[in-house]
Amino acid sequence: MKQTPYKLIEKRFERIDTLRSIIHLLRWDAEVMMPLGSNEIRAAQLSLLDLECNSILRSKKTAVLLDRVESTVCNLTDWQQANVREMRRLWIYGNTVPKRLINSLHRAVTKAEVQWRKAVETNNYKTLCPHLERVVDLVREKAHHLAGKLGCSPYDALLDEYDPGRRACEIDPVFDSLKTSLPGLIAEAIQWQEGMPVLKINAEIPVARQRELGRAVMKQLGFPFEKGRLDESLHPFTEGTAEDIRITSRFSENDFLSGLMGVLHETGHAMYDFGLPSDWFLQPVGRDRGMTIHESQALLLEMMIGRSRKFFEFAAPLIAETFQASGPAWAPENLFRLATRVRKSFIRMEADEMTYTLHVMMRYEIEKNIFDGTILVKNLPEVWNEKFNEVMGFYPNTLKQGCLQDSHWPQGYFGYFSTYALGAIMASQLYRSIKLEKPEALDQIPRGNFEPLFGWLSDRVYCHGAKLSTQDLVQQATGEGLNGDHYLSYLKEKYLGTS
Amino acid sequence: MKQTPYKLIEKRFERIDTLRSIIHLLRWDAEVMMPLGSNEIRAAQLSLLDLECNSILRSKKTAVLLDRVESTVCNLTDWQQANVREMRRLWIYGNTVPKRLINSLHRAVTKAEVQWRKAVETNNYKTLCPHLERVVDLVREKAHHLAGKLGCSPYDALLDEYDPGRRACEIDPVFDSLKTSLPGLIAEAIQWQEGMPVLKINAEIPVARQRELGRAVMKQLGFPFEKGRLDESLHPFTEGTAEDIRITSRFSENDFLSGLMGVLHETGHAMYDFGLPSDWFLQPVGRDRGMTIHESQALLLEMMIGRSRKFFEFAAPLIAETFQASGPAWAPENLFRLATRVRKSFIRMEADEMTYTLHVMMRYEIEKNIFDGTILVKNLPEVWNEKFNEVMGFYPNTLKQGCLQDSHWPQGYFGYFSTYALGAIMASQLYRSIKLEKPEALDQIPRGNFEPLFGWLSDRVYCHGAKLSTQDLVQQATGEGLNGDHYLSYLKEKYLGTS
Repeated sequence: MKQTPYKLIEKRFERIDTLRSIIHLLRWDAEVMMPLGSNEIRAAQLSLLDLECNSILRSKKTAVLLDRVESTVCNLTDWQQANVREMRRLWIYGNTVPKRLINSLHRAVTKAEVQWRKAVETNNYKTLCPHLERVVDLVREKAHHLAGKLGCSPYDALLDEYDPGRRACEIDPVFDSLKTSLPGLIAEAIQWQEGMPVLKINAEIPVARQRELGRAVMKQLGFPFEKGRLDESLHPFTEGTAEDIRITSRFSENDFLSGLMGVLHETGHAMYDFGLPSDWFLQPVGRDRGMTIHESQALLLEMMIGRSRKFFEFAAPLIAETFQASGPAWAPENLFRLATRVRKSFIRMEADEMTYTLHVMMRYEIEKNIFDGTILVKNLPEVWNEKFNEVMGFYPNTLKQGCLQDSHWPQGYFGYFSTYALGAIMASQLYRSIKLEKPEALDQIPRGNFEPLFGWLSDRVYCHGAKLSTQDLVQQATGEGLNGDHYLSYLKEKYLGTS
Repeated sequence: MKQTPYKLIEKRFERIDTLRSIIHLLRWDAEVMMPLGSNEIRAAQLSLLDLECNSILRSKKTAVLLDRVESTVCNLTDWQQANVREMRRLWIYGNTVPKRLINSLHRAVTKAEVQWRKAVETNNYKTLCPHLERVVDLVREKAHHLAGKLGCSPYDALLDEYDPGRRACEIDPVFDSLKTSLPGLIAEAIQWQEGMPVLKINAEIPVARQRELGRAVMKQLGFPFEKGRLDESLHPFTEGTAEDIRITSRFSENDFLSGLMGVLHETGHAMYDFGLPSDWFLQPVGRDRGMTIHESQALLLEMMIGRSRKFFEFAAPLIAETFQASGPAWAPENLFRLATRVRKSFIRMEADEMTYTLHVMMRYEIEKNIFDGTILVKNLPEVWNEKFNEVMGFYPNTLKQGCLQDSHWPQGYFGYFSTYALGAIMASQLYRSIKLEKPEALDQIPRGNFEPLFGWLSDRVYCHGAKLSTQDLVQQATGEGLNGDHYLSYLKEKYLGTS
């Protein structure tokens, strides 16, 4: 039986996504299980699989098949058509940037990462600077290639890779408005919290108990352990496909809330992946819809759901039981206050919900100015420190507290940071819609019933895979486009008790 | 710079071995870490990687390059020449059996395995029989294809896959002689041991302590934990390449010796893989020299070294300390007696060193007769039971105690069993040479110094990779070919105190 061109191209992309599922596992293993000395063979394995994916995308046969399928696309179902559109998107990303440039960027990033570690240790930017300049030059070149194909500006092309269809002109007014409102709101919140007594937790909680709590909470949330795991790693992450998803958290004996919130964050990512349309498993249209939506799912569960009074009404007894703890510090209201403490600090990864967005928007601005040429890489530390002082009101003392705290830039990830803040905004919009449309989804939380919540998310977000654009997905789910005002309202209500 | 055909073909085989190293990791993960419900995506991942390896082996380009390299092989070093010889060997295995047949066999094995499980549960051979017949028919067909290329009998072709160059005519006289001598020796040993008091260990040892002991012993043996791990699984195994080797054991609270011996066995496998020539990493000539040599390394460490008085002189204090145990049962001599207890039983996997070989030789004979047509698959249970009674002196009560105890045949592994016994013989020959040539390698064991032992093994076995044939390797290491007499002498000395 002869197969249609559509079926043939589906097979090719299934191979790509099967290879990608192996890459997920190798990455998980590298962070969680792999002996330290095995990093070289692991790098060779990952690079080979990456090459295999690319060689399928770059093969003549794929190009010819895709052209043929597109020329008769009207005979396909709407899901199939969306699948072909996503195939073309992947094809463009796989075929636009010259191989030579990809290889140069890979080498430059490898060197810059090593220098970044050294620069952080020695608090000396000089040795890193030329390597970071080289990375930026190559990313710029890459962005120019992609911009030509996508019909947008180079920096927009960088945004597009992580958040398909997103353009800076859409982000700017939203961030500008937040930049104006947030600092005042934060100051108010800090003042407000000063008048709220909060009891510190002085007990050291063994990691084994925290792991147990994490699993119990995940189980209650509906995480399907028959197709997933919880482990530990230096930084929490989620890797996998709907048939096998592995999440990690990091547990510290002195700060169990941070480990638990890590579990919630990653479970949010995982539930999205688990909920993607199973009929389109291993097909481009069956993938998630980019990093902004992904982050929105993680933040919705961690911030809006997890750091809420209702959640601690459910979780506090479970926490006390698992830790065999008692006393007023373990009461829901006190745990809620501990989980929502606002304070300005140097480090993005340790920031609270409110100041986090300030950290991220600042990075977005710097990135954009690097790519429009108004900031030179060599001036990064000074520019950073001045901007940080503008935003937070004090200066970093070291590079580690300042512009070198994140590995994103040395790793060549430009265009990524904005998804963190956009994800938070989107999460607040989804949260608002849930409250309006299905209040029982929130009301059931104190009873540990998360089914209505995930039912709504499944219907509105998960089940679409990559069928809709990010914009259409948000529009359909919430009745409007990206809107930072709902984020501000959410923060006001939560942190200042006004609505 | 243009690369030579030899360098180009090396690159192709490096890709194959890198893919294989990924397959190792996926298999390890499936047994040790993977959630149970993820087996389908794992099967798809493994089958895709297998396909990739095969498509490299079967590509026109590989064939053309290999022909070219062979025509000018005299310009290469001896290692390179051996590498080309091994490439051709892999090429023959990859190109001789028709794809259609490989796929049919794969499907037949999948079905037979399911039926095998059912047959074991229900103690009913009937439903399995036609599936096993189908597997045997397809393996026979595969053997015929390979036999034509290798210039040997079909059953020899099956042996060759696991033990390159091995032929039945070489095995038969060795096994025949053992078949004659072993039963009497076993009877003597059992009688001899009846007069030797042995104290049972009644303590239950927590698995965590056993794991700790396993790691401590491995560390003392020189297992490089920076490139390897110890975990647990249903059946102990070793997976990996010299840059990342993962071994497992199975720990039972009531029988710590079995878990410890599992650790030694797999460490024996691992040390061989770690010791393979690093200059030829990811090349055919850098691989191990087949399953007989591999098994010899595992058995040498488990049986000759591990189940010895000298070993327990080293291990007994470590065991007692790790388990916080004391008393006469934990004395070296008593532990040695526990580890060398001989008794006839139904199950190969639970058999002692001496009767194990009887179990294996019986399987070899049945296999050979299945392939020369003198045993019909439908008569397997009756044939098995009669043969078992001849060898052991009693009948199995169930299929699980009898011909269905192993999964090898339903899985299509014919020609494999003999490597277990040949490995034991080879291990005894290597052991004899060590004793003669480098007695300090054994004398140092009570002090926990295993360096001289592994130094010798590295020089004589590990460093050759697949450069020598199995026969040449044994000849060079021990001064003679396969010789079952040394195995008998070893057993007599160990179990009857005669030398």
